[in-house]
Amino acid sequence: PEFDQAVLRIPIVGFLEYCLRGIGQVVFMNSPITGAFILAAAWTHEPYLGFSGTIGVLASTLTALVLGFDRGAIHAGLFGFNGVLVGLALGLFLSPQWDVLVIVWTVVLSAASSILMAALGSVFGGAWGVPPLTLPFNFVTLLFLVSALQLSRGHLGDLVEPGAPAVTGPEVQTALRESASAVGDTDAVAVINAIFRGIGQLFFLNSLLAGVLIIVGIAFCSRIAAGFALVGSAVGMLTGMALGADGVQIYNGLWGFNSFDAALAIAGVFFVLTWRSALLGVLCAIFTAVLFGAIASIFVPWGLPALTLPFCFGTLTFLLLKGASKYFTFVPPADVVT
Amino acid sequence: PEFDQAVLRIPIVGFLEYCLRGIGQVVFMNSPITGAFILAAAWTHEPYLGFSGTIGVLASTLTALVLGFDRGAIHAGLFGFNGVLVGLALGLFLSPQWDVLVIVWTVVLSAASSILMAALGSVFGGAWGVPPLTLPFNFVTLLFLVSALQLSRGHLGDLVEPGAPAVTGPEVQTALRESASAVGDTDAVAVINAIFRGIGQLFFLNSLLAGVLIIVGIAFCSRIAAGFALVGSAVGMLTGMALGADGVQIYNGLWGFNSFDAALAIAGVFFVLTWRSALLGVLCAIFTAVLFGAIASIFVPWGLPALTLPFCFGTLTFLLLKGASKYFTFVPPADVVT
Amino acid sequence: PEFDQAVLRIPIVGFLEYCLRGIGQVVFMNSPITGAFILAAAWTHEPYLGFSGTIGVLASTLTALVLGFDRGAIHAGLFGFNGVLVGLALGLFLSPQWDVLVIVWTVVLSAASSILMAALGSVFGGAWGVPPLTLPFNFVTLLFLVSALQLSRGHLGDLVEPGAPAVTGPEVQTALRESASAVGDTDAVAVINAIFRGIGQLFFLNSLLAGVLIIVGIAFCSRIAAGFALVGSAVGMLTGMALGADGVQIYNGLWGFNSFDAALAIAGVFFVLTWRSALLGVLCAIFTAVLFGAIASIFVPWGLPALTLPFCFGTLTFLLLKGASKYFTFVPPADVVT
Repeated sequence: PEFDQAVLRIPIVGFLEYCLRGIGQVVFMNSPITGAFILAAAWTHEPYLGFSGTIGVLASTLTALVLGFDRGAIHAGLFGFNGVLVGLALGLFLSPQWDVLVIVWTVVLSAASSILMAALGSVFGGAWGVPPLTLPFNFVTLLFLVSALQLSRGHLGDLVEPGAPAVTGPEVQTALRESASAVGDTDAVAVINAIFRGIGQLFFLNSLLAGVLIIVGIAFCSRIAAGFALVGSAVGMLTGMALGADGVQIYNGLWGFNSFDAALAIAGVFFVLTWRSALLGVLCAIFTAVLFGAIASIFVPWGLPALTLPFCFGTLTFLLLKGASKYFTFVPPADVVT
Repeated sequence: PEFDQAVLRIPIVGFLEYCLRGIGQVVFMNSPITGAFILAAAWTHEPYLGFSGTIGVLASTLTALVLGFDRGAIHAGLFGFNGVLVGLALGLFLSPQWDVLVIVWTVVLSAASSILMAALGSVFGGAWGVPPLTLPFNFVTLLFLVSALQLSRGHLGDLVEPGAPAVTGPEVQTALRESASAVGDTDAVAVINAIFRGIGQLFFLNSLLAGVLIIVGIAFCSRIAAGFALVGSAVGMLTGMALGADGVQIYNGLWGFNSFDAALAIAGVFFVLTWRSALLGVLCAIFTAVLFGAIASIFVPWGLPALTLPFCFGTLTFLLLKGASKYFTFVPPADVVT
Repeated sequence: PEFDQAVLRIPIVGFLEYCLRGIGQVVFMNSPITGAFILAAAWTHEPYLGFSGTIGVLASTLTALVLGFDRGAIHAGLFGFNGVLVGLALGLFLSPQWDVLVIVWTVVLSAASSILMAALGSVFGGAWGVPPLTLPFNFVTLLFLVSALQLSRGHLGDLVEPGAPAVTGPEVQTALRESASAVGDTDAVAVINAIFRGIGQLFFLNSLLAGVLIIVGIAFCSRIAAGFALVGSAVGMLTGMALGADGVQIYNGLWGFNSFDAALAIAGVFFVLTWRSALLGVLCAIFTAVLFGAIASIFVPWGLPALTLPFCFGTLTFLLLKGASKYFTFVPPADVVT
């Protein structure tokens, strides 16, 4: 332990470790190795996303240090997981890539996510004993994207496209396909794509390989968590199919990424594992998938993405059951060991 | 009492009693008889709504038992009142009637309302000592309806119709009439319809007779509550008329149902009755009616109904006055006797 | 002190003092003199706004007395600052001026703001130890304006204009100008206008002179607060310019008024002044300006104004940092001395 502490006193090495832990904390893994796998997945899939996520986690962790927030939380990566997601999201939704102003917005908004994390941590922890999850990331990113609609320096890309809500259900094509123009029915290849892209999409990486890398990174830290991640992504996909959702969305993992993180949180992290808590994780994955459909539909007028709001609301709902049932034993955030 | 307990141990009879109490709890009456009157009103007005509400209350109460939630609360019907409303609402807003998939959605979403009830009960009870009222029903139902816009198996009926907000006030016809095509001015018959349909509409029953049956059911348990129910519905109607709201909406009870439940809650249940608390109930009914107009207008882009969100926000606002004034004596939810 | 108390027992004089303090409390100054300056600014700029704000503060303060709310809070003006803003806002957004029904709505809604103040004060104070700021004003005003879209007696003016969100950023003209038809680039005169109109706009007074009067009124009570007010307004303006916002909006103070009150609250009132807390106030002003852009964009479908929601959410976020960092010493609302 003394040697360990000495290493941590070397500022740069320690700081980079907090950042990698921060990346791992998106999937509740307090481990630099999980973080490294995820970061590798991002750089491999699309170098600019890797870069954007990296500056996000650096900026948010540094901000927390400068503002004097809780050291223990910073070391555990709790001021990094929102920042890396802000970076990845803005890397995807702003354009063009490598633009100076886009990078400035990314740094500033990642830094802001740490302020919001501290504020929301106090709101949620104080009154209810639950963590704010990725709400700081969602709020910061969505607020910037919606304001950017009317800003000449907002640098919005094509993925944000305002529209008018309408009853489009009857025209929805439900066969799992990569794109609207692709042909073919739902088959095993499509299902495997949906499940693993559903893992990758939590980090805005629409890629089967990225999904595999992330699962390996999680499994390195906790095989149970990795198992529930896959189950959660599959449950999200199945819920989308049962509801008759757009097959292109499902194929590309959009119905899986919120559900996978929700199942992992409930069944693999915050409740002591029993067959009942495993079932609760599956229920939470279903609930979260329905929330994804709802939030995506609510956001149509502004063309905003649902991001991980469904995960936040779904997981918080099930976390709040902690005092409501004798069947489930809650593990307080401070005692979570992964 | 020993005989009573023996009866309650017979599972089916006891379970059905909890469910009937659950229906009664929508109007804060912990009484199977009030519940039976309301259920009779639903079956009489439209058998499918009676059926849909029945499976809703069965599913939500059963879910609470299976998940091990608080027995006392289940027995008092507190895990049934959201479920019956989910059932009735989906019976009205999904189509066609008696469709297998619609029934499946109704069962699943009613069950989900119990999970949300436990979670929100912990949020509201822990931090503020107030109950979540019918928020679980509102959230579950609205989230499904809005997501169903884009789902091929959403089975949305014609009542959900997205549109664009506009300044339509100047063209509004304010005379109380049954439909846009009906002729005639506001008269005593129209006023009586508005008040009693305002009672029935809390259960999605647009019927004068249903309103009368429900009032009788409430009066069986508490004549004071029944009185404030009628006063609240009348105040809601009058607020709508004063604001110059659409007369067809008012005639059909849409400005009354939230206000009636709000007045009943504030003046008849949660504050010790004095002339001041009676006045507070009237103020709450006015406040709630304005909220109905606002929420209905906010929901225009997605074509969603306001449901009982106005009741929830209006009543919660006035419940939260409990510590603010020396004039009002609050009755904690656990001590409410009706 | 005995003489003082005797004066306060003369009801009218005491009551008017609470009202003037209430006006001062919008900028956190518990001083009738600050209030008198602000009121003078309103009457000078536009007599109807002065009248409308006056009846607002009278109605809300009187309501709090009648409902038996906390005397100390009433005397400090805490039941007046929402009311005066409701009055000023409805004076601007409803039409025509001096209409009897518009005045009735103003009185009723200002009164309602006191009920919401008591309720939200209990919500925020109990769970988190922070004040609800001007949220009661925002909720009451926005809810009425949005419902008025569909009310024949809503008396909405031309400033509320529903539209469809769209990517309008690329066409935005960023030069600071008084109106869309004005010519010329951003110059020192435009900048001075933006900063001082940004002060006046908190009270819906689009006037350089009003801004000067308000700053003088604040400086009478606290020169530090007045300084941060100007800094905050300038920071809001600069944030708008950096983001490439509409120059007409910036010139007319719309990017300044939320940021000025936020900077004043954080750097001048709620944290003990250090160079770090001064910097925190600047960060809060930037954060609040981004929130203004976001909320204005979110409200486009209904044509609603952002009012002071950005100030509320921005300031609350930074207030909630009170327990998160060793660098900042929080002054509880009850101990605030200005």
